[in-house]
Amino acid sequence: MVRESEIREGELAVEMPPARDGGLVFIGRIRTPWTSRLQAPRQGRHDGPVCRLEIFEPWVPALKGVDFYSNLEVIYWLHLSRRDLVLQSPKNNKSTRGTFSLRSPVRPNPIGTALATLVERRGSTLLVRGLDCLDGTPLIDLKPDRCLFTPLAPPRLPP
Amino acid sequence: MVRESEIREGELAVEMPPARDGGLVFIGRIRTPWTSRLQAPRQGRHDGPVCRLEIFEPWVPALKGVDFYSNLEVIYWLHLSRRDLVLQSPKNNKSTRGTFSLRSPVRPNPIGTALATLVERRGSTLLVRGLDCLDGTPLIDLKPDRCLFTPLAPPRLPP
Repeated sequence: MVRESEIREGELAVEMPPARDGGLVFIGRIRTPWTSRLQAPRQGRHDGPVCRLEIFEPWVPALKGVDFYSNLEVIYWLHLSRRDLVLQSPKNNKSTRGTFSLRSPVRPNPIGTALATLVERRGSTLLVRGLDCLDGTPLIDLKPDRCLFTPLAPPRLPP
Repeated sequence: MVRESEIREGELAVEMPPARDGGLVFIGRIRTPWTSRLQAPRQGRHDGPVCRLEIFEPWVPALKGVDFYSNLEVIYWLHLSRRDLVLQSPKNNKSTRGTFSLRSPVRPNPIGTALATLVERRGSTLLVRGLDCLDGTPLIDLKPDRCLFTPLAPPRLPP
């Protein structure tokens, strides 16, 4: 069931504390084919449509070497989500689960993570597959997939 | 090589824009054996030491059902990291890579992600293995590992 922002039976909302423990800067914007939550898939697929990660200045030089990796971890901000639910009812049937046992976009810090397949870099834009987010979603980080990445610096000796 | 906060030869710093596009609330604190960056491992290991995720109120009810999952995605805030480097030299040898092609803690939004193995839940605390972060690191989200999680709501029909 797709939620706009209503609370369902059995769900629990808390008073949301001020969200100023840490501040984010949007490093780019994600362009996808989905303009409404009614259309977006629940999880990305590696054979899904090509989406675009448009990187903003001054961060474009930080893309150097990114095309070395076939898979990237994409971290984004689910800007339309409410943040105050601790118990949620995904099936809207009164049965609830805790927010931290779900990958729902509704969470105290609405951060989404996805593993995307890199198709091509074009200047300040990356073409990728595997996303499920709405068109216009703010981008907050990109990292090589941890399974592919080996630290470049030498390992530290045990203390 | 371990960085405190110096800039190395060949690295490129930019003027950091104000970080107020999105605001975070710390949902808990991570307790690990590592109190200095000289000791912390570069990547977590699933046979590494047991660490604790201490969840703060009002978020404790959001843990309901979390012990159903053997692996959790842990998202945290690398509170000691500088944020303004776009080119970095992991080996400190003048050769640089873009920040988005590294998993370095130094990044515009210093968000770390790890896949941890859940050992046990004890009230508002989760015992996990697989982390590499410093003791006291602020926690910002917990999700079931995407590989284990199947959405509970029915799939959407293609538009």
